[in-house]
Amino acid sequence: MRKIVIGVMGPGERATINDLQNAYKLGELIAQQGWILLTGGRNIGVMDAANKGAKSLDGLTLGILPSSKEDGISEAVDIAIFTDMGNARNNINVLSSNVVIACGMGAGTASEIALALKENKPVILLTDDKESKNFFKKLSPENVYIVESALDAIATVQEYLA
Amino acid sequence: MRKIVIGVMGPGERATINDLQNAYKLGELIAQQGWILLTGGRNIGVMDAANKGAKSLDGLTLGILPSSKEDGISEAVDIAIFTDMGNARNNINVLSSNVVIACGMGAGTASEIALALKENKPVILLTDDKESKNFFKKLSPENVYIVESALDAIATVQEYLA
Amino acid sequence: MRKIVIGVMGPGERATINDLQNAYKLGELIAQQGWILLTGGRNIGVMDAANKGAKSLDGLTLGILPSSKEDGISEAVDIAIFTDMGNARNNINVLSSNVVIACGMGAGTASEIALALKENKPVILLTDDKESKNFFKKLSPENVYIVESALDAIATVQEYLA
Amino acid sequence: MRKIVIGVMGPGERATINDLQNAYKLGELIAQQGWILLTGGRNIGVMDAANKGAKSLDGLTLGILPSSKEDGISEAVDIAIFTDMGNARNNINVLSSNVVIACGMGAGTASEIALALKENKPVILLTDDKESKNFFKKLSPENVYIVESALDAIATVQEYLA
Repeated sequence: MRKIVIGVMGPGERATINDLQNAYKLGELIAQQGWILLTGGRNIGVMDAANKGAKSLDGLTLGILPSSKEDGISEAVDIAIFTDMGNARNNINVLSSNVVIACGMGAGTASEIALALKENKPVILLTDDKESKNFFKKLSPENVYIVESALDAIATVQEYLA
Repeated sequence: MRKIVIGVMGPGERATINDLQNAYKLGELIAQQGWILLTGGRNIGVMDAANKGAKSLDGLTLGILPSSKEDGISEAVDIAIFTDMGNARNNINVLSSNVVIACGMGAGTASEIALALKENKPVILLTDDKESKNFFKKLSPENVYIVESALDAIATVQEYLA
Repeated sequence: MRKIVIGVMGPGERATINDLQNAYKLGELIAQQGWILLTGGRNIGVMDAANKGAKSLDGLTLGILPSSKEDGISEAVDIAIFTDMGNARNNINVLSSNVVIACGMGAGTASEIALALKENKPVILLTDDKESKNFFKKLSPENVYIVESALDAIATVQEYLA
Repeated sequence: MRKIVIGVMGPGERATINDLQNAYKLGELIAQQGWILLTGGRNIGVMDAANKGAKSLDGLTLGILPSSKEDGISEAVDIAIFTDMGNARNNINVLSSNVVIACGMGAGTASEIALALKENKPVILLTDDKESKNFFKKLSPENVYIVESALDAIATVQEYLA
């Protein structure tokens, strides 16, 4: 009965418009596949956009919050896990995702990618940032997948799960 | 869209037959209410029984695992959160539950009750153990509810949520 | 080269005068033995009193903080570990202590005792609370030691370590 | 009375000889300054080498372990903090260090650097890896310091603390 959980990680405050569009699209596509969307659960940036995309197509959304309280949680989160662990919850995000999709880049996102790679989880990078691609691809050539669009990201997840 | 999450906590290896029957019944009743069942997610004791009860009536089950791996997870868990935090995950269990129901007693369960009370969460005690009732009722008279059956426990949750 | 670490756990805001006197005395005695004192590190209650006692006799003090920031830390903490994990850090407190001494009672303290017993750590109870003694002694007869004074607590630690 | 804590982070199994030499030297220099050395505490790689360097000059060493057990701990750790949190303990490592020195590179080390930058902690990079330097310097130009030797790293810490 175990459900497939796909994590979408990305910047909060510093997300670009492109990141937000990709995140919304990823949320839609994940919902369409019948997968559960996992994010960091906050009402900002990539987290919020991905959750809204998933809910627009009746997906189920799981938010792993850094706090213990309702404040700052995305309205599009169905199930909230309150960790009260700050950024240490990033490790739970990646451990609980079958595949991690990084949408955009920032310090928090970088920590999630690195923690995922430490656990040999597959990570799909959807970013324009050249230094990110070079760094993570060198860090773990076998587990990092570089893609150019949300559609490519989902196709890569499908291949991996198959 | 946020869903109501009810935590059922109780012993693993040392659960009594009575604990297991209560846990299964609690799982059924929680599913009937349309609430999500949260447990520690292991394939043993109260956790496993509650999950099986919930799945028997098509409930949705959330398991907050102490480990990072598939081993030892209840087959009746739909959504697995892998914390890799051992018993420190007990704090996440209680923070993420609207109400905590303790079904039976043991050291892990006692830690969950105490952590819930520390956060001013309501805790419903379903146990025959007299020393447990005396201790926790004195520790937090306002947040501890003592009940005699799974049905009573659910009625108490309903009153609290209303 | 590994040093012996003795944990002193007890209430913050709700500590009684008796708890504070016992905590200060425990800090002194732990320092005299050349052991390291571990507490929850806050500038209040049993934590603060134990740290001050230890520093009065040049002991070394380790504070495992619930927060990520300097605010609220005891001035008598030498080495601060910032967990940013709230009460989930209680599990680290007990795992990192060779022996746990509970001085007084409260919800947080109860969680630490229960987490210690879950890990088969010895716990020394120094409290007047009858319900606490009955509950924890029944929960783990072999690992709970009930004492009447700070001196008795330290003698019990010495026996255990020997 | 609060002591200054300097974190040295780096690869375990995959440390290069150069990383190990730098780590040993960092341990020595940190001990000479009277600072406390914080590492991930394992008996391997940069962690072990740094601890041994510090102990060779009578420094005090603090190991933040991923496990709950003695196995795999560096013999040169004086004070062991057992987190039982796996790689989520990486966040505690950086939060508890006044300054983080990354010595070499790997997925775990990258997660520590990223978590430190997320918290606006200064990070000193001592590595030959060009992609690492480009990535982290772009991620946080103001908090990343690139150095060429253990001596440079310590000089940078001194400037920062001054």
